Amino acid sequence: MTRARFETPQEAQAAFYEALELADVEAMMEVWSPDEEIVCVHPGGSRLVGRIEVREAWRQIFVTGTRLKFRIDGVEQLRAATVSIHNVIERIAVEGDPRAIDPVLATNVYVLSDNGWHLWLHHAGTLPSIAETDALDTRTPTLH
Amino acid sequence: MTRARFETPQEAQAAFYEALELADVEAMMEVWSPDEEIVCVHPGGSRLVGRIEVREAWRQIFVTGTRLKFRIDGVEQLRAATVSIHNVIERIAVEGDPRAIDPVLATNVYVLSDNGWHLWLHHAGTLPSIAETDALDTRTPTLH
Repeated sequence: MTRARFETPQEAQAAFYEALELADVEAMMEVWSPDEEIVCVHPGGSRLVGRIEVREAWRQIFVTGTRLKFRIDGVEQLRAATVSIHNVIERIAVEGDPRAIDPVLATNVYVLSDNGWHLWLHHAGTLPSIAETDALDTRTPTLH
Repeated sequence: MTRARFETPQEAQAAFYEALELADVEAMMEVWSPDEEIVCVHPGGSRLVGRIEVREAWRQIFVTGTRLKFRIDGVEQLRAATVSIHNVIERIAVEGDPRAIDPVLATNVYVLSDNGWHLWLHHAGTLPSIAETDALDTRTPTLH
């Protein structure tokens, strides 16, 4: 398999959301690190560890046929030499369905190897439903 | 203020959960990076950015008087020169209450500066309730 090469974390992230929108398992798995210990958490789901579990979950998500469109917002980033951490708000629309769905907050960790940048962790959770985008950062949690 | 110095990410993480158990806001904020762009997400909560928001949320959590005990489990770690990412399962018990509560999955990002290791991001979400610990990694997500 020819592995995709991403020269920056931003390129890897763009490829991740493109694969998600296309519901393309092969393209999705090209974004992930070959590291067996990759970690993926879907909203409300358990932790998936390793390429086999991560791939199978994406396959099951994509096979539903639902097509999603993503707009990435509010990026908070920490960049080191070989690791880049992006905490992002995913604004999601379902193709053919005008109803709004709750945004998702995701932490994406990209890691640099000899083969460029790849995704090592994707940890996503649904954000509370709030009408005003500007209020996203002000809600008080109720429990740790 | 004399800032605490943590020589390893593990020391910083131990101090984080100790501050949580003690419900000590000052000790908690010593664990966090002085970086204004720190990010904290409590289970079911919105994203908090910056020391002021992060501190106020911890204050509101701690003031309830509920005391929690944490056991950290299932650590998946990515270590780079100046950044260490720990994805952990938090097994939580409420002092004086024998009822089980759902475990929490957290991504903790620690960053090294001249002043040692500090927490830059804590992204936590409740895990699905599953009787068997061993089944934690096998549940299928329903939507990205």
